Amino acid sequence: MSTSALAANTRPWRSAIVYLLMLAGTVIGFLVVRHYGESLQTSIALPAIAGTKVGVAHRNEALLHVLLALVAVIVTGRLLGQVFRYLGQPPVIGEVIAGILLGPSLLGQIFPEFAGYLLPQSVAPTLGVIAQLGVILYMFVVGLELDPESLRERGHSTVAISHASIVVPFLLGSILALFLYPRLAEPHVPFTVFALFLGAAMSVTAFPVLARILTDRGISRTPLGVVALTCAATDDATAWCLLAFVVGVAQAKVQASFLVLVWTAAYIAAMFLVCRPLLRRWVNSLGDRPTTPGVMAAVFVGLLASALITEAIGIHAIFGAFALGAIFPHDSSLAKDLIRKLEDTVTVLLLPAFFAFTGMRTQIGLVSGMENWMWCGLIIAIATIGKFGGTLVAARVTGLNWREASSLGILMNTRGLMELIVLNIGLDLQIISPTVFAMMVIMAVVTTIATTPIFQHINRGATTEPLA
Amino acid sequence: MSTSALAANTRPWRSAIVYLLMLAGTVIGFLVVRHYGESLQTSIALPAIAGTKVGVAHRNEALLHVLLALVAVIVTGRLLGQVFRYLGQPPVIGEVIAGILLGPSLLGQIFPEFAGYLLPQSVAPTLGVIAQLGVILYMFVVGLELDPESLRERGHSTVAISHASIVVPFLLGSILALFLYPRLAEPHVPFTVFALFLGAAMSVTAFPVLARILTDRGISRTPLGVVALTCAATDDATAWCLLAFVVGVAQAKVQASFLVLVWTAAYIAAMFLVCRPLLRRWVNSLGDRPTTPGVMAAVFVGLLASALITEAIGIHAIFGAFALGAIFPHDSSLAKDLIRKLEDTVTVLLLPAFFAFTGMRTQIGLVSGMENWMWCGLIIAIATIGKFGGTLVAARVTGLNWREASSLGILMNTRGLMELIVLNIGLDLQIISPTVFAMMVIMAVVTTIATTPIFQHINRGATTEPLA
Repeated sequence: MSTSALAANTRPWRSAIVYLLMLAGTVIGFLVVRHYGESLQTSIALPAIAGTKVGVAHRNEALLHVLLALVAVIVTGRLLGQVFRYLGQPPVIGEVIAGILLGPSLLGQIFPEFAGYLLPQSVAPTLGVIAQLGVILYMFVVGLELDPESLRERGHSTVAISHASIVVPFLLGSILALFLYPRLAEPHVPFTVFALFLGAAMSVTAFPVLARILTDRGISRTPLGVVALTCAATDDATAWCLLAFVVGVAQAKVQASFLVLVWTAAYIAAMFLVCRPLLRRWVNSLGDRPTTPGVMAAVFVGLLASALITEAIGIHAIFGAFALGAIFPHDSSLAKDLIRKLEDTVTVLLLPAFFAFTGMRTQIGLVSGMENWMWCGLIIAIATIGKFGGTLVAARVTGLNWREASSLGILMNTRGLMELIVLNIGLDLQIISPTVFAMMVIMAVVTTIATTPIFQHINRGATTEPLA
Repeated sequence: MSTSALAANTRPWRSAIVYLLMLAGTVIGFLVVRHYGESLQTSIALPAIAGTKVGVAHRNEALLHVLLALVAVIVTGRLLGQVFRYLGQPPVIGEVIAGILLGPSLLGQIFPEFAGYLLPQSVAPTLGVIAQLGVILYMFVVGLELDPESLRERGHSTVAISHASIVVPFLLGSILALFLYPRLAEPHVPFTVFALFLGAAMSVTAFPVLARILTDRGISRTPLGVVALTCAATDDATAWCLLAFVVGVAQAKVQASFLVLVWTAAYIAAMFLVCRPLLRRWVNSLGDRPTTPGVMAAVFVGLLASALITEAIGIHAIFGAFALGAIFPHDSSLAKDLIRKLEDTVTVLLLPAFFAFTGMRTQIGLVSGMENWMWCGLIIAIATIGKFGGTLVAARVTGLNWREASSLGILMNTRGLMELIVLNIGLDLQIISPTVFAMMVIMAVVTTIATTPIFQHINRGATTEPLA
């Protein structure tokens, strides 16, 4: 092809005239057509479908609001993240709080109209799906970054610590239910359901937030970081099973809850015993070649399928994503390439949708009056004693020293967003009242913020060396 | 930290006993709590909110269906893509057709229940927003890959070709309206609106599909590829302005339509005269350092803001995304890093949502009977004559040779998905009937499939050399 012919425009006046003639011709031409067409009648008579114009407006507005919400929460989250970084906190807390501030808790109180425009309730389902897609991809990356060998080495102690850090807060949470139930429970909720739910909600460790705290502090690859992540992952899986059980009991489907446990066990076994060797063989066959779109498509299909299976079982889709990441050969060039391609886009662009979505559904204003704040304080105290204490004791028993055990305890006390997801489910099923919901949200934020300063206090003077 | 203390588990029997005691204690503990709690009464009486359980089910199911739809369209699209590649077609056509096949046109006809489960109408808005997010990111990457210098060199001839390739199909489309209006138009639609819409719909060139065709063929960086992309971009911007004008007229808001034109001009001027130098200075100040999450966040905020502005103006959000990509310093390491990070994830994971969404809304079955198929054939003929002919003549006039001019003509005849978006808007506003909609969809697919064989026929024996 001759580049010159395309690049050179030897007769500008000629094209200018052609251009003008063209425009004039268009207008005249259309007017002529219009003259003949105006008198035409249509021969068909279809009934007009009411409300479709609203449908268009809604669709376009959903996009507009999702874009607005993303911009608002990314900007606010980044700014608050800088403030929290300055205060020695992980920047991720800034994003969590940005989401809450942009919701009905602050912005909705001060500028209700602006908040209603920025994040109307109608975009919540859409924002929720984008948020969950973001969390699915994020959990896959977190799984990819896990070193499965180091997990296996200390698998036994990890499982014991993890279960202790579930059992103790679960029991304390159900005891707390004895006091909260007469005062704050919805009238139609049976005590058993309320107590089970409160126990499960107390047992949650925020895997994604914990992972970001560890990554932000650069200790996700230290032995302590790996144990904490593994415990948190096991905790979350267990807590979700527990939650599925609670949801089953709440809907009087106990058999279904047991089925969830059986299917989860079968899924985990299949992932580790069948998929893992097959995946390793496939990844080895690819070698160090650059990742093709076909390989990317295969990985994404596997990821979506794994997420779908866990979602269909009844434990959240994100466990399927995390499990696939965890069984991936983590030292392969494909895994490294996937991390490189996904990590920044997911954490910077998609995860804020999750923060915005969670913030939208949180109303801190419902906790008012001295007595309410006292109950809120008690919830925070019980949650911390249960999680921190349970982990500490189990870690000591399985052979960790005091500093390691207490570090792990405070790390596991991070509740963050996972707690908020659990709480939203409880609110949706009307197991907890909006007031208990708001109290538990405050508990989640407080335990998350408390993690870093206490962790630093425990580890003052100690150096944490990377694993590899 | 002592790695050994964490790794070694010196007393397995001890933790096993503790573990069993823990579990037994939990069950007994909870049963005790339950015994005391069962007799408690709640003191508050809040009204139960009806329908919230449905809300949960809906939210979870939306995620399930979105994941299912993505898996289905990625797998089908990849398989069909291989078939089409074998037939010498760009694989992207496979994905477009996969979307249509999974919708009501094929799957909905054969297995209506399965199709209703896979892609229920209730997930369409959510899938639509994810699709649009995917297209926004995709258009940004396409813009990033454009070489602005090469555009400026041949800007004049490009604008002339682009406008000719709008004007001719627009006029032919409005003449076609004279024949289609009495037979296939909705009874309440004025002729002017119908003719304007048909003209605008004929003038669309599928920028994203054209970009994928050029990328798939490896000619997106050749002079012809760059001119085709630039023309298609200008075409689309013009067609969207025209469409905004049509929508304005259809809703009797002519003044608003002119405002759209004024704002669009102001936006483009601001992007090139204000944002471009500022962006260049900022990117230069970053140098070759690796991209930090902070820089990524700034880019994404800019991208979302630019998309928001064009969406708010009334031309689609994707133009804002494309424009930001186009003014980005394309030889900077940041631009290359962004392409590396975004390209695969977006094209492999998010763009299929767009194909699925578009397919969901297409019902080929509505075109039935000899007369309908004849009208459908006429639409295809008029669309091709207008687009191919108009481009060919303008390209010849501005100095391109016959082969280049006809290559450009056939490339511009690619309608693809952009056409489908326009058609959906027409259907939503009840400007066109579902039957005309289906005919136009067939036209879009046929013109897109015709592009490659005719392009190859024109360029047989010719070698297209990359620009740089």
